[in-house]
Amino acid sequence: MDAYSIGVDLGGTNLRVAAIDSGGQILDRVSIPVVYDAGPDQVVCKIVEVIQRIESRLDGSGLRGVGIGVPGFIDTEAGVVVGSANLPGFTGFPIRSHIERELKTHIILENDANAAALGEMWMGAGKGVKDLLLMTLGTGIGGGIVTDGKILRGFRGMAGEVGHMTVFPDGYPCGCGNCGCLEKHASASAIAAMGQMMHFGNNEREITAKRVFELALEGNARAKLIFESVGRALGIAIGNLINLFNFPLYLLSGGPLPAWDLFAPTMFGEINKRSFNFAGSGTRVQRALLGADAGLFGAAYLPFQHQTEPGDPATLP
Amino acid sequence: MDAYSIGVDLGGTNLRVAAIDSGGQILDRVSIPVVYDAGPDQVVCKIVEVIQRIESRLDGSGLRGVGIGVPGFIDTEAGVVVGSANLPGFTGFPIRSHIERELKTHIILENDANAAALGEMWMGAGKGVKDLLLMTLGTGIGGGIVTDGKILRGFRGMAGEVGHMTVFPDGYPCGCGNCGCLEKHASASAIAAMGQMMHFGNNEREITAKRVFELALEGNARAKLIFESVGRALGIAIGNLINLFNFPLYLLSGGPLPAWDLFAPTMFGEINKRSFNFAGSGTRVQRALLGADAGLFGAAYLPFQHQTEPGDPATLP
Repeated sequence: MDAYSIGVDLGGTNLRVAAIDSGGQILDRVSIPVVYDAGPDQVVCKIVEVIQRIESRLDGSGLRGVGIGVPGFIDTEAGVVVGSANLPGFTGFPIRSHIERELKTHIILENDANAAALGEMWMGAGKGVKDLLLMTLGTGIGGGIVTDGKILRGFRGMAGEVGHMTVFPDGYPCGCGNCGCLEKHASASAIAAMGQMMHFGNNEREITAKRVFELALEGNARAKLIFESVGRALGIAIGNLINLFNFPLYLLSGGPLPAWDLFAPTMFGEINKRSFNFAGSGTRVQRALLGADAGLFGAAYLPFQHQTEPGDPATLP
Repeated sequence: MDAYSIGVDLGGTNLRVAAIDSGGQILDRVSIPVVYDAGPDQVVCKIVEVIQRIESRLDGSGLRGVGIGVPGFIDTEAGVVVGSANLPGFTGFPIRSHIERELKTHIILENDANAAALGEMWMGAGKGVKDLLLMTLGTGIGGGIVTDGKILRGFRGMAGEVGHMTVFPDGYPCGCGNCGCLEKHASASAIAAMGQMMHFGNNEREITAKRVFELALEGNARAKLIFESVGRALGIAIGNLINLFNFPLYLLSGGPLPAWDLFAPTMFGEINKRSFNFAGSGTRVQRALLGADAGLFGAAYLPFQHQTEPGDPATLP
């Protein structure tokens, strides 16, 4: 059979695994609940079990390797999680060698936001582009940077922390110790928090980002103002990114994306003002296409990319 | 004789040319005044003349090529200046082919700030490092980004515009159309402008950045405040850069560098606050070492690098 690889996404509540061929077709996929508090040994067991299940349904001889997207900082050379707010027990655990021992195939670990950026490049909004930045708006804001087809990792695996860019030097305080981080002004959590501050009514105590979105759609001026504020923060950040990287493409994904029409006008106004090399340059700022699957595609792409290095990932079918 | 290349730096008032061997030794150097208003043809003549003079003094057979650092945006593939505030007549002029026709050697054009970053990597403060960002504080603030030993150019040759990062969303207006650009808060010109606003006395009408520096050294509290403000702006910008690139090294150069002790404490305070992956990571923020020669070294490095591609520039002797 044709070559395929397996992508694994260690999400918040689900472990998602997909077998994807070199043309980007999903051959098989599995999603099962996972409890990270059970510790890394249990999680490794689950990963191995699911991959073996998929292998048994496909032809094992076609497997080129397994890529795993992990919500944390990764030492890719060592195959170790060096830090993760979401997987506390995993820090320092040699996850790659544990899985490799069981599966006897090539395992590559990658930060989940980086994997998502790679996935969008391969099969999403970044098709045909080799330099892009993906920003994911969720509880926080994650980022993945791909340049010349490869992930920009940084010397400690900590590159792409777009959520902690300072957009307002005296803005909202952030758990990282800073004030005015982008993720305190433009994430889904920030939208909910700004909603709380707006006091939309007694029955709106536990207001969510989604509810702020609904209120804005209903014409609520204060809810609309929140999205303009989000657009301003995103525009300042993306303007800086364009000035620094001069990439052809910047992608946004995550829960608040349905509110695009509410925040994008302000965002583009800021970008136009703050990045003199935006207008007329062909630089695109767009919605990502793969949603939560971006990380799965990117994880699956890793073994193919590794195989062709030091060649050009664009030579992949 | 040993291989050498020739680096050219098209500076504001001087054309500087140096022959440099593959070990980074300067074999010969020439600096002559140049008038850019005379047009690109005249400047090309001068460049060719100076290079031929150097070639006649060395052994022409060792020449590996010529690198030229240009204060403008470059289409490196086409060898054309696509935009330059300092060389208005050069936009669209095929400078590379004109020089190549005369010299019959390999010519590479590069943006001057990019060349300077490469020069610092090769023979300056970045020796042994393959990922760094250089920021040059002058009339404006220029930047060059080197990742995996190669310049990050961007798809329009406009990457590294650190001077136009927004550090204060409602800060000083900038000619680019933005407010709060880094270069309006931390360049030599910004220091002078803030000095003007401080009204240091009737005889200080035309105050320079150097004079603000002297006043600060004399203990003038308002002059010291200006450098703290510079440090704050730099710290916000560099904090963002660290969050994005996670490079091991960020370098500063330019006229205000002697004032390091006046602005660096505030700068590092901001960086520590705004970049959670700075402290304890081994990330260095330092003074560049080559001064105005960084661009010459970087320009001379280009032909060597091009020769070894797609190999590793670190394999150069």
